[in-house]
Amino acid sequence: MSNPSTPPNKEVNIRAGVEDLMKRRFFITPAFQIYGGVAGLYDYGPPGCAIKANLISYWRQHFANYEDMLEIDCTALTPEIVLKTSGHVAKFADFVVKDTVTGACYRADHLLEGHIEKLLVDKTLSEEKIKEYKHILSRAGDAPQDELAEMLTKYAVKAPDNGNPISAPVPFNLMFQTQIGPTGQLQGYLRPETAQGIFVNFKRLLDFNGGRLPFAAAQIGNSFRNEIAPRSGLLRVREFTMAEIEHFVHPDRKNHPSFPEVANIKTYLLTAKSQGTTKEVVEMTFGDAVAQKVINNETLAYFMCRTQLFLHTVGIKPERMRFRQHQSNEMAHYATDCWDAEIHTSYGWVECVGHADRSCYDLKVHSDKSQVPLVAFEEFKDGPKTVDVFDVKVEKGLIGKTFKGNAKEPLDFLAELSNNFDKALNFNKELEANGKVTIKPSNTDYVITKDMVTLKQAQKKISGENFQPHVIEPSFGLGRIIYSLLEHSYYVRDGDEQRCVLALPPIIAPVKTSLLPLTGSEKLAPFVARINRLLKDAGISAKVDETGSAIGRRYARTDEIGIPFAITVDFDTVENQTVTLRERDTTKQVRVPITEVAQLLKQLCENMLEWKDVLAKYPAYVPTSEN
Amino acid sequence: MSNPSTPPNKEVNIRAGVEDLMKRRFFITPAFQIYGGVAGLYDYGPPGCAIKANLISYWRQHFANYEDMLEIDCTALTPEIVLKTSGHVAKFADFVVKDTVTGACYRADHLLEGHIEKLLVDKTLSEEKIKEYKHILSRAGDAPQDELAEMLTKYAVKAPDNGNPISAPVPFNLMFQTQIGPTGQLQGYLRPETAQGIFVNFKRLLDFNGGRLPFAAAQIGNSFRNEIAPRSGLLRVREFTMAEIEHFVHPDRKNHPSFPEVANIKTYLLTAKSQGTTKEVVEMTFGDAVAQKVINNETLAYFMCRTQLFLHTVGIKPERMRFRQHQSNEMAHYATDCWDAEIHTSYGWVECVGHADRSCYDLKVHSDKSQVPLVAFEEFKDGPKTVDVFDVKVEKGLIGKTFKGNAKEPLDFLAELSNNFDKALNFNKELEANGKVTIKPSNTDYVITKDMVTLKQAQKKISGENFQPHVIEPSFGLGRIIYSLLEHSYYVRDGDEQRCVLALPPIIAPVKTSLLPLTGSEKLAPFVARINRLLKDAGISAKVDETGSAIGRRYARTDEIGIPFAITVDFDTVENQTVTLRERDTTKQVRVPITEVAQLLKQLCENMLEWKDVLAKYPAYVPTSEN
Repeated sequence: MSNPSTPPNKEVNIRAGVEDLMKRRFFITPAFQIYGGVAGLYDYGPPGCAIKANLISYWRQHFANYEDMLEIDCTALTPEIVLKTSGHVAKFADFVVKDTVTGACYRADHLLEGHIEKLLVDKTLSEEKIKEYKHILSRAGDAPQDELAEMLTKYAVKAPDNGNPISAPVPFNLMFQTQIGPTGQLQGYLRPETAQGIFVNFKRLLDFNGGRLPFAAAQIGNSFRNEIAPRSGLLRVREFTMAEIEHFVHPDRKNHPSFPEVANIKTYLLTAKSQGTTKEVVEMTFGDAVAQKVINNETLAYFMCRTQLFLHTVGIKPERMRFRQHQSNEMAHYATDCWDAEIHTSYGWVECVGHADRSCYDLKVHSDKSQVPLVAFEEFKDGPKTVDVFDVKVEKGLIGKTFKGNAKEPLDFLAELSNNFDKALNFNKELEANGKVTIKPSNTDYVITKDMVTLKQAQKKISGENFQPHVIEPSFGLGRIIYSLLEHSYYVRDGDEQRCVLALPPIIAPVKTSLLPLTGSEKLAPFVARINRLLKDAGISAKVDETGSAIGRRYARTDEIGIPFAITVDFDTVENQTVTLRERDTTKQVRVPITEVAQLLKQLCENMLEWKDVLAKYPAYVPTSEN
Repeated sequence: MSNPSTPPNKEVNIRAGVEDLMKRRFFITPAFQIYGGVAGLYDYGPPGCAIKANLISYWRQHFANYEDMLEIDCTALTPEIVLKTSGHVAKFADFVVKDTVTGACYRADHLLEGHIEKLLVDKTLSEEKIKEYKHILSRAGDAPQDELAEMLTKYAVKAPDNGNPISAPVPFNLMFQTQIGPTGQLQGYLRPETAQGIFVNFKRLLDFNGGRLPFAAAQIGNSFRNEIAPRSGLLRVREFTMAEIEHFVHPDRKNHPSFPEVANIKTYLLTAKSQGTTKEVVEMTFGDAVAQKVINNETLAYFMCRTQLFLHTVGIKPERMRFRQHQSNEMAHYATDCWDAEIHTSYGWVECVGHADRSCYDLKVHSDKSQVPLVAFEEFKDGPKTVDVFDVKVEKGLIGKTFKGNAKEPLDFLAELSNNFDKALNFNKELEANGKVTIKPSNTDYVITKDMVTLKQAQKKISGENFQPHVIEPSFGLGRIIYSLLEHSYYVRDGDEQRCVLALPPIIAPVKTSLLPLTGSEKLAPFVARINRLLKDAGISAKVDETGSAIGRRYARTDEIGIPFAITVDFDTVENQTVTLRERDTTKQVRVPITEVAQLLKQLCENMLEWKDVLAKYPAYVPTSEN
């Protein structure tokens, strides 16, 4: 797990170090702390907020702009009908148990796991028992209600804080509810994912794209999940920023034109099959993975590879990420194939980006419920076809007179017959035979008689057909990536346990350079002001530290919040208009003319220049000491 | 109201044109439309989303980065205690009336206004009546519950849709409620503003800033208001993005070091006084406004000016914006001075940015409630002072034994005496006189006897003192600015009513250039691909249109979504490696070498070059026709 590009980690407790740093330098903090805080809610302080903004900006560049995706921005408030249709109202739940004395709530599977883990500590357990307990651990997260209830009873699980008895597990929906409007009659939820906003806008997106497929829509925004008992710090929170892509394709053509560009890139895969057997991670190219049908299709594999490139660029260590395929019992029934990008942290492997082929599920359920056909149109390859249809001639006046205010339903039903040959054929047979047909489009019966409608078989030329696109969805949890990034980039300087460093890539670093006058001398101040203006004009964020602490101490303060470069203004600056430029990880310094430093930093921060190029071009500067 | 920099508007109905354009080109659309939509909820489609992202990005550059503000990112979910303390739970409400037959809800003041406006249509009204009605119109929005009830009764206001009787007005809190966590016991709200997140983090922000004042914190994020009856399209919505700044200053020093830089800039002011009398808007410099005490202080005026510069740069027409001062009846009791930046639209003057001097209200109420002192420390100018204090020696053991589990309260009370000379003096007098003192820190009485505590008067050197900073708050509603921007930049080309244009500045335009092959010829395609790559590498977003429509039609399509430039690849491109570059508002074209076009556009879009410079440098290109 070492990484040659950064100095080796000392044996420190990474998590404790990162958490102390996050708190001390206000990266991320529990929200509403002056009032005792609320579990699962966190605020981003200035460095955390800047890292998040940089991550979003690079995500937009790497995904949305690079692939010409249609980025949209939908509301978090969502009416019930949307989430009922998507299945979230019925199924987006975890199981909760209650302490029957205090009323405290626990997540049932976590409680069971905690209990079993304690049992496993016992060194005298038989191999059989160990196997039994490990089986329970692997089942707890996916077990249905009755199985979970049975296991909690079997192992006599109690409330962990006080040993009180607990209730049987019941499902608890994880969506936050609220009422929209003053009447209290419109039930709403805070969205648990951004994806639904894209699906309900599909028709407009397709129009915007000139009716052409494939295309991808993207959205960056906050989602909300009312976790039963948030734990694991930033990894399971109740409000979080997601970035989601919905790539719409023809169901029969999931190849991707840019796939050849990435086919030779290697990756680590933990397949569904291997999870049940060897648990081995295989290293292979995305091209081989598709060819050998390990990954279902090119488009899914293409996005997995783009995700991998993204994560590597922002600072996730390649050897600490992998893709884990969903096993059949964790995958939704409609999904074809799912792979989670997992990142290794002190909490173990953490799911950070989901990649799912969701087939046509979402568009289909919303089409059915809303009666708005969310379909695309495709011309036949070999020219127009002639098909059998029925011409339907409706006596609207008579139907209006007969059914009055309800006439719309039977009118819609009859109009639809011209689009559905089989349905029209059956309808017509019955009409011819009985002189009438009783229809029931929703809840009401309507008797249609021969004088209301005439059907005549005919032929029609059609140029193509409608189809329901499939969707491939990469879905990013940005908070989890940020936390992982902090762990991966944290290290302690060799020989000095007090000096921790965040080796964040310049593109993600919260501030690009520090700007330090060597002393408080009045001679240096105008140079600091001038350079600060040059940096601002070039769009390079700078943190000026004029506190007068020893220069080494000031470097240490900027190292630990991940600032990659430091400009020091000293008395040579006054003499020859040059400054020293220091790089955080090597701690090497060069002397650079004032007039060149802003452009140099801009190139370094946009990944157009490497530090070694700077070392080669400019004279080295060797300070007497960093302390 | 004409603007010399853009072609004059034809006499068109701007609002209808903008709304048609927004819908047709998917700028902004009612959310969940396939399910009939939800009032007050809107989604941003690709061009709207890009405009919003550009606006946010420029806001960050113009405010947060330029002034080294501390940007943070807090949760929207907020526990009740925070919003009770801020006053929102008690007071953030509008009055609602119900149709007593159907149950439909209406905002009481709007209903009254609508009713009175209808009465005013009558041409035969006496002058006295007209005066009476106009008075009602000016009162409706600010009237308290009983006055509103009286007016609704007096004018016999009914439900507007059906003439049904209505209930008396009752307050309806505008915050969305929800429960946090599974027990249902933690009442939460969606924040109605982002500011509270900054106030509750004040202590950490001050620490991050090295304890120094003044400093500003900033936040960009979504807020939620459960409007009773959203109307006016995008101007009154239930979920919206805000950008807020909280600038913390010493109460006695509201001057601003950068004020001289902006003092000579002119602005339009509608003062509180003039609203009651002449209703005249005065033009004056910010410097004069502060000198003549029209604007309360330099810091408030400085931010108003920065807001004005921001709005002008993003495309708001200078002659269609002004600052309106709050009248005393609309200002919160704690506020010192408030000015709204108002923008003129087809809906009239719209409040888009509030500027308020909120004094120390927010920090004080949160300090009092949380018992965490949200204060800053300042050293005395003339060195340390010697002050009288009491040394307080507490017999902790005895107090612990006496009060057991409740001992913390009296212990805290006694410890606090060493910080409050007067309180200690009184306490000690009573203790000396009676041998005991009964204290009641919150709900419980404690009898403190002489053996529990000894007070001795002494002197202490102190270097400075704590104080509660004041806060000056500029607060931006981004959706309102975006809608105003669309109205201000919309025009119809002279002589062609079908061709509408959005004259958005390049910095805000959703896409920076279009890229058009003149024909579908295979010879042109490789040039399009090459230029697209050059543009992407330079970070210039481009929309390729290869549909083969007439070039004039394709220009028109890009004009109406505000794309400022167009590159056309023609057969001369194949010959001499140049393209035509067209500017949207002048429709003038030049020929530019392929190798220079990306950098040229980058400079144009970053406001480092003007179109007239391009016209001067490159050879003009005169096409035969745009159609």
